[in-house]
Amino acid sequence: MGMVTGADYLKRMKLLKSDVWMDGEQVKGSYVDHPAFKPVLNAKAQLYDMVHDEKYAPTLQSKDKESNFSFEIPRSMEDLKKRRKATQLWANETLGVLGRSPEYVNTMITIMAGAKDFFASDDPVYGENMENIYKEAKEKDLTFTHTFVNPSISRKPYYPDGTGQEQPIAAKIVDENDKGIIIDGARLLATQGGITDELLVIPSAAFIDSDYLFGCTIPSNSPGLSFLNRPSYNKEDSFNYPLSAQFEEGDAIVVFDQVFVPWERVFLYRNEWQMNDLFQKTGVEAYILYQASNRQIVKTEWLIGIAQSLVNTLDIEKHQHVQGKLAEMLIVLEAMRGFVYSSEIQAELNEYGVMIPKLEPLKAAAAYFQSVYPRLVEIIQLLGASHFIAAPTRQDFDSPISAHLERFVRGEYITAENKFRLIQLARDMTITEFGTRQLLYERYFFGDPIRVMSSIYHLFQPNKQEYVTRVDQFLEKQKENTK
Amino acid sequence: MGMVTGADYLKRMKLLKSDVWMDGEQVKGSYVDHPAFKPVLNAKAQLYDMVHDEKYAPTLQSKDKESNFSFEIPRSMEDLKKRRKATQLWANETLGVLGRSPEYVNTMITIMAGAKDFFASDDPVYGENMENIYKEAKEKDLTFTHTFVNPSISRKPYYPDGTGQEQPIAAKIVDENDKGIIIDGARLLATQGGITDELLVIPSAAFIDSDYLFGCTIPSNSPGLSFLNRPSYNKEDSFNYPLSAQFEEGDAIVVFDQVFVPWERVFLYRNEWQMNDLFQKTGVEAYILYQASNRQIVKTEWLIGIAQSLVNTLDIEKHQHVQGKLAEMLIVLEAMRGFVYSSEIQAELNEYGVMIPKLEPLKAAAAYFQSVYPRLVEIIQLLGASHFIAAPTRQDFDSPISAHLERFVRGEYITAENKFRLIQLARDMTITEFGTRQLLYERYFFGDPIRVMSSIYHLFQPNKQEYVTRVDQFLEKQKENTK
Amino acid sequence: MGMVTGADYLKRMKLLKSDVWMDGEQVKGSYVDHPAFKPVLNAKAQLYDMVHDEKYAPTLQSKDKESNFSFEIPRSMEDLKKRRKATQLWANETLGVLGRSPEYVNTMITIMAGAKDFFASDDPVYGENMENIYKEAKEKDLTFTHTFVNPSISRKPYYPDGTGQEQPIAAKIVDENDKGIIIDGARLLATQGGITDELLVIPSAAFIDSDYLFGCTIPSNSPGLSFLNRPSYNKEDSFNYPLSAQFEEGDAIVVFDQVFVPWERVFLYRNEWQMNDLFQKTGVEAYILYQASNRQIVKTEWLIGIAQSLVNTLDIEKHQHVQGKLAEMLIVLEAMRGFVYSSEIQAELNEYGVMIPKLEPLKAAAAYFQSVYPRLVEIIQLLGASHFIAAPTRQDFDSPISAHLERFVRGEYITAENKFRLIQLARDMTITEFGTRQLLYERYFFGDPIRVMSSIYHLFQPNKQEYVTRVDQFLEKQKENTK
Amino acid sequence: MGMVTGADYLKRMKLLKSDVWMDGEQVKGSYVDHPAFKPVLNAKAQLYDMVHDEKYAPTLQSKDKESNFSFEIPRSMEDLKKRRKATQLWANETLGVLGRSPEYVNTMITIMAGAKDFFASDDPVYGENMENIYKEAKEKDLTFTHTFVNPSISRKPYYPDGTGQEQPIAAKIVDENDKGIIIDGARLLATQGGITDELLVIPSAAFIDSDYLFGCTIPSNSPGLSFLNRPSYNKEDSFNYPLSAQFEEGDAIVVFDQVFVPWERVFLYRNEWQMNDLFQKTGVEAYILYQASNRQIVKTEWLIGIAQSLVNTLDIEKHQHVQGKLAEMLIVLEAMRGFVYSSEIQAELNEYGVMIPKLEPLKAAAAYFQSVYPRLVEIIQLLGASHFIAAPTRQDFDSPISAHLERFVRGEYITAENKFRLIQLARDMTITEFGTRQLLYERYFFGDPIRVMSSIYHLFQPNKQEYVTRVDQFLEKQKENTK
Repeated sequence: MGMVTGADYLKRMKLLKSDVWMDGEQVKGSYVDHPAFKPVLNAKAQLYDMVHDEKYAPTLQSKDKESNFSFEIPRSMEDLKKRRKATQLWANETLGVLGRSPEYVNTMITIMAGAKDFFASDDPVYGENMENIYKEAKEKDLTFTHTFVNPSISRKPYYPDGTGQEQPIAAKIVDENDKGIIIDGARLLATQGGITDELLVIPSAAFIDSDYLFGCTIPSNSPGLSFLNRPSYNKEDSFNYPLSAQFEEGDAIVVFDQVFVPWERVFLYRNEWQMNDLFQKTGVEAYILYQASNRQIVKTEWLIGIAQSLVNTLDIEKHQHVQGKLAEMLIVLEAMRGFVYSSEIQAELNEYGVMIPKLEPLKAAAAYFQSVYPRLVEIIQLLGASHFIAAPTRQDFDSPISAHLERFVRGEYITAENKFRLIQLARDMTITEFGTRQLLYERYFFGDPIRVMSSIYHLFQPNKQEYVTRVDQFLEKQKENTK
Repeated sequence: MGMVTGADYLKRMKLLKSDVWMDGEQVKGSYVDHPAFKPVLNAKAQLYDMVHDEKYAPTLQSKDKESNFSFEIPRSMEDLKKRRKATQLWANETLGVLGRSPEYVNTMITIMAGAKDFFASDDPVYGENMENIYKEAKEKDLTFTHTFVNPSISRKPYYPDGTGQEQPIAAKIVDENDKGIIIDGARLLATQGGITDELLVIPSAAFIDSDYLFGCTIPSNSPGLSFLNRPSYNKEDSFNYPLSAQFEEGDAIVVFDQVFVPWERVFLYRNEWQMNDLFQKTGVEAYILYQASNRQIVKTEWLIGIAQSLVNTLDIEKHQHVQGKLAEMLIVLEAMRGFVYSSEIQAELNEYGVMIPKLEPLKAAAAYFQSVYPRLVEIIQLLGASHFIAAPTRQDFDSPISAHLERFVRGEYITAENKFRLIQLARDMTITEFGTRQLLYERYFFGDPIRVMSSIYHLFQPNKQEYVTRVDQFLEKQKENTK
Repeated sequence: MGMVTGADYLKRMKLLKSDVWMDGEQVKGSYVDHPAFKPVLNAKAQLYDMVHDEKYAPTLQSKDKESNFSFEIPRSMEDLKKRRKATQLWANETLGVLGRSPEYVNTMITIMAGAKDFFASDDPVYGENMENIYKEAKEKDLTFTHTFVNPSISRKPYYPDGTGQEQPIAAKIVDENDKGIIIDGARLLATQGGITDELLVIPSAAFIDSDYLFGCTIPSNSPGLSFLNRPSYNKEDSFNYPLSAQFEEGDAIVVFDQVFVPWERVFLYRNEWQMNDLFQKTGVEAYILYQASNRQIVKTEWLIGIAQSLVNTLDIEKHQHVQGKLAEMLIVLEAMRGFVYSSEIQAELNEYGVMIPKLEPLKAAAAYFQSVYPRLVEIIQLLGASHFIAAPTRQDFDSPISAHLERFVRGEYITAENKFRLIQLARDMTITEFGTRQLLYERYFFGDPIRVMSSIYHLFQPNKQEYVTRVDQFLEKQKENTK
Repeated sequence: MGMVTGADYLKRMKLLKSDVWMDGEQVKGSYVDHPAFKPVLNAKAQLYDMVHDEKYAPTLQSKDKESNFSFEIPRSMEDLKKRRKATQLWANETLGVLGRSPEYVNTMITIMAGAKDFFASDDPVYGENMENIYKEAKEKDLTFTHTFVNPSISRKPYYPDGTGQEQPIAAKIVDENDKGIIIDGARLLATQGGITDELLVIPSAAFIDSDYLFGCTIPSNSPGLSFLNRPSYNKEDSFNYPLSAQFEEGDAIVVFDQVFVPWERVFLYRNEWQMNDLFQKTGVEAYILYQASNRQIVKTEWLIGIAQSLVNTLDIEKHQHVQGKLAEMLIVLEAMRGFVYSSEIQAELNEYGVMIPKLEPLKAAAAYFQSVYPRLVEIIQLLGASHFIAAPTRQDFDSPISAHLERFVRGEYITAENKFRLIQLARDMTITEFGTRQLLYERYFFGDPIRVMSSIYHLFQPNKQEYVTRVDQFLEKQKENTK
């Protein structure tokens, strides 16, 4: 066991009964056949199958061949580089548009397990719990989503309900006994909410009352747990919506209605400093960003491929501004690669013996990509220009008007049908609801851009101090010279 | 007659049988009830009803009360200002998102009729035709769409078909007799294609062979004329898609399959200089831009209204960067108003006795707005932030989960339902397929941005020469002073 | 009297003995011959001579022919438009680079005198004082500079001096008697500090203690008043530094060392609401911005003239990106003109019977210009490119190497000497210390850009409310429709 | 020999008599004491002294201890990394503002010598010449400048002189004999022109006539060779102009008046393909960019140091937008480091056995830095704001007004004098003529930005093809799936 095939995975998913709502209705029947969930489940199944493909196995399997790479605790530079290749391999299969590739949360679990002593420093039991959660996940090749963001009203975690009572909003511990804790309230934004085996609840710094400070994992079908999903963007037609039809993954609000979490699943409990240190001390922040940066590199390659295909198809290469736009994209690609290489070269074992890529360049990558991604989208839109406005569809090409289309909107060396296959891909990447959700996703991937910048300002404090000292010394030397 | 009511208009539209294709199928039955066309027909009907509303009549009716304002040839400053108010009034009713408000093409017809001597200068018959076209349109209160852009393959208007023959692509005159001319080929991009009474064909400078040089109007249901429409963005739900459901207007490719146009409908015929001078000499370019700038002013007001509503609802006013973003929008609004006022103050009667707003500021407005509109969209996206990602829908609020939503995602002074009504409006303006089509529409409204900039460079030649002369004189004076 | 000639003015300036420091030395002798002050005094003398030139007199003289236009209280639309023309005329003579053209502060005095009842509302004497200050200024055609910004340390107006005492920093009232008030402390940034007849002290909102709240005028040579000037940028060579040599105007810190101000010169005294309302209620803010916008329009014309001359001389017009850059500049020009026209069209008499241009568009103009001016500079730099780096000088052209220069760096239709005359003008506008001071001046003309944006946000509150209301009504109507 | 000390170097420079013109006069006497040249000669002397300082020797000396690092042909990854450290060490000593640190052209000579077979492939003698040039340079520790850009008139290398003759402009071979070649004409832009031992003439692709195709080195004092320098920016005061006074390096036009170059100094002769391939095939382009990127990294660190010092001194850290501006700078720093690391990780031995860093990321770095450097400058300007406008000078602090300054413009924890020492450093980096020349230098370092972008477009052709292929395969697969 330890490495499921696509079929294994789909079989398990077929049995998953979590409480999921969409379009005002509770989802009935198997998710595997539901149009809203089929795409992402199939996309993930495909990734699992790759693990067993001998062409990819050396990259995608762990060294002990007991799991896929995401469950291997990285101990060396080699382990780190292998993760880069593996992440890029999976990302390439999904054009970089699948935000929650299985290794995303798996890696969080794995790195936290590598730092189990961090959790044990409060009470040994939390270290053991973390390790057991990891071992089970690895053994069963479980999938996870995670939830991080607390809802609030005007920055408060509750709403005065008029009866003088505070109505709790953000999920918090409302009761506990010797078996476990009871959670009530909500969390915002779980991508793939309700269609993973488990949910990882990450404590967040929004509110410091200890009731809000807990970290745990729970099965998606835990009693009282509900996922309120936005409508699906899957349009089911892979000509008109080649990405929506294959990679729509969904987003949800998570509601905890008196959800019971056994102690065995709790790895952080009412501990403020642990919550504050969790991301940086365990290395989990560096790894989240490392995964994301590698995915974004691959996504940028796809955007460049689409852009250059548009340039070729529309025969616009000769324009200097077109070359300039492609060059802009290539610079983004090289910058992103540079950030990742930089994080690898400066990687170090942390105190738990886990090889952690350098955080600074990865944080810079996150801020950089969230600022340039909209420009990448804009370039695609500018290159395709009016072709996006009245683009013919598969239905049009299957109809009597296809002759008109082949006559009037073909390219010099390409049929109209093939030309608009490409145009529709570019549209789905940048213009459809799937495409604009990608834009929102990348722009907010690591949080509000203004806060990300502030956090960079603070993270780099030691480096900046070094440069300030140089300035001081320069001015001091000037002073002496002029005495 | 001369001013239809909404009901009159819908009744006439109910009978219109043009050849329209969508999703690979020929549209059957009445457009009035078809989900793809219902929104825009109803939206226009509403505008026609306003003309008869005594509150709006002074602004929307012509001075002689024989037509709406769009058919009144403007002869004075007062006429011009009245047009500003009328256009803004209609635009306000449609939130500035209806690109082809009835007066858009009506105004082209009207201004060209005002300059009928321009057409007569080739042959008196073309002047008469232009005037008759206008008179009929005014009398019947006809609606038009227009088509301007020629298809091409690698900048050629034909494709070598392999048999040594050139396959014509761009619509051109293929035959003519004493009754009229025969047109064959296609034109790209007619908004509201197939669902207006008539189609205005504007000659375009793309190809100088005289076969391509003709201007005419023809009924949308002319034999041989087909409209190949893109799929509709109407989602029919006015909570989730408040704009898509009301203002989707469609875009089409127009195919002429040996379409016969009687001489009476032709106002420009194989005349290259007329084609080149048409836009500026008749004043039609200034009026297109005047209409568009006024619509864009109103749209900007709506975007500001939405942005400020988000700021209030999400309680984010205190952030300096939020205030700065709103201030950016307000500056855009003031700039657009300034361009329009500037064009009015400098308006002059042209040689045909029509009062023409100054072209330069309007051209600047067009280039300015196409460059800033994406930023307005981005600001809305940045203000709404993650609220756009998993926004609940009407179906959700009508379901058992509405209690959850009211508890977890309400605002301090607003119910969740009302809050997300607003969020969905902002989404539909900036994120849905309707919203991104708006972005493409504004960005390409007056053509490829790079060409628009070049045309501004050339249009302003005399002004620039004046400034160059000043520099010459300054340098000359310097030279003398230092002798 | 009432309208000095250039010679009158210079004669008066020759006698002015104020306490001015530069480069660590007290300036001795007449300012008129001092290299630091000669340029600006001559530039202003030239402006005064224009008033007497019959070609310009109709524009530059007041209707009663008793003063130049700046001392005429504008009562009608015509008065307002005349000011536009007059300001542009003077600005054109100085290429828009003279920040403190005489009418700048004169206008403040004039508009405040127009609103003398504003000051009288506290005590009639302040209204009379304001009027008398104005009358004297008008009669003698005095020149002013003004000072507005308070120094502070960490936002406090004093510094703890270690002895338990607070050391006052910002200028404040430290004593008063029946003759007048005693001022001690400093003010930052008086352009042309020390070389105008008088200094206008504007109260500023930085500190609310009433000691800081006073408005007055005093002669520049008042005992105890000192001006600490930055070094002069005048390079004296009008080939190499054509602007520095003619239009350098200086900036200073103003020190009040127990300066006595007689009551007759005080127009605002310890009155907090007056300080808060002064700018908007009297109309003085609108007029400052109206003057500045008109000057900036002319400056933009000069920048365009220089840019187009570079394009012609360097023969780079054919590049699309060059045309695009010029078009950008032309759009800025049209936008600025639009803001000004917009302010005129919406002008209204205020409660004091003064015709006040609409503030909103002018405030937008200020924010817009401070954001785009750096781009105008950058465009000039990009057009001139490497020609700016090793540009030959007048000394080079007067030397044996001039033959080399005429051979190697001439243009096709222009001698090397004339080509570099232009290049040096462009350099002095954008690259020299004079040029970069212009950049700082425009960027901070109306204050820190971030605060300017916040003030726009608040100023437009009523307008925004109107747009919010429309959104509310739209959503309300939607709600009813779906019931 | 092989590693001069600062004193050795200055002694040699004292004897150098080249023909240099400045301000219209021929420079007489020793450059070492000339205010225009003293700064850069002393700055370089300081760098040479560092080579002998035991603290720096391991980094700055070659492995064989026979030269400084710049003359060591890099054969391994270790050699490459050592160069990074050495370049950064020297750059740090000069705050990254010395564009032509000695290793810049030395490295070109060294890498070309490493690829001597490239030159030998035409005729063995050119390979030998290249090697001998290198050996002599290394042995004597010579300094070089180089010249690359041809003058032209409307893209032609000559000017019709009216007599029917073409007047040659760009330097070219006008005669040759068995001793050598005779060069006549000019080259633009040699930084440090006339004050280095030798001049490296790089062939450039501007004109393909073989007369223009030659590469050689010649002593700066060769008969007939003249350097026409722009005026010096050295202001000699290290308080007011801390950088101008120390690091001004000059720029010149180079004139060849029948200059004789012996065959022994020629390494490329009338060979078009060699000229085309020179930069990429020998690896010299990669090394120019590697040196520059490392210098720019250090410069960015200094800019950050200055920016953070301003933030601390002006006590503005609490503003979110200030933190954001610093974060922007930090991201630039990380991006530049990433490009360099990326070029190292992908370095490979070229066919001449020289370890060449990967060109693509370095080219991206060049384009990226030239686009962001102006923003770094702008951030410094925005942080310092109005402090830059009337900044007091050393003369002010040495005068009676210093008490005023210490009272009115000090900081909470810093004296006025120290505060303005910092302000003046920031000014000299971004606002003075020295500072704006830095801006022009970085913006044009690797050529016109628009051409740099086009060259990136073409350089990355193979990579892009790979991404296009992926898109093709994806669309192909879609097609099969939908059959």
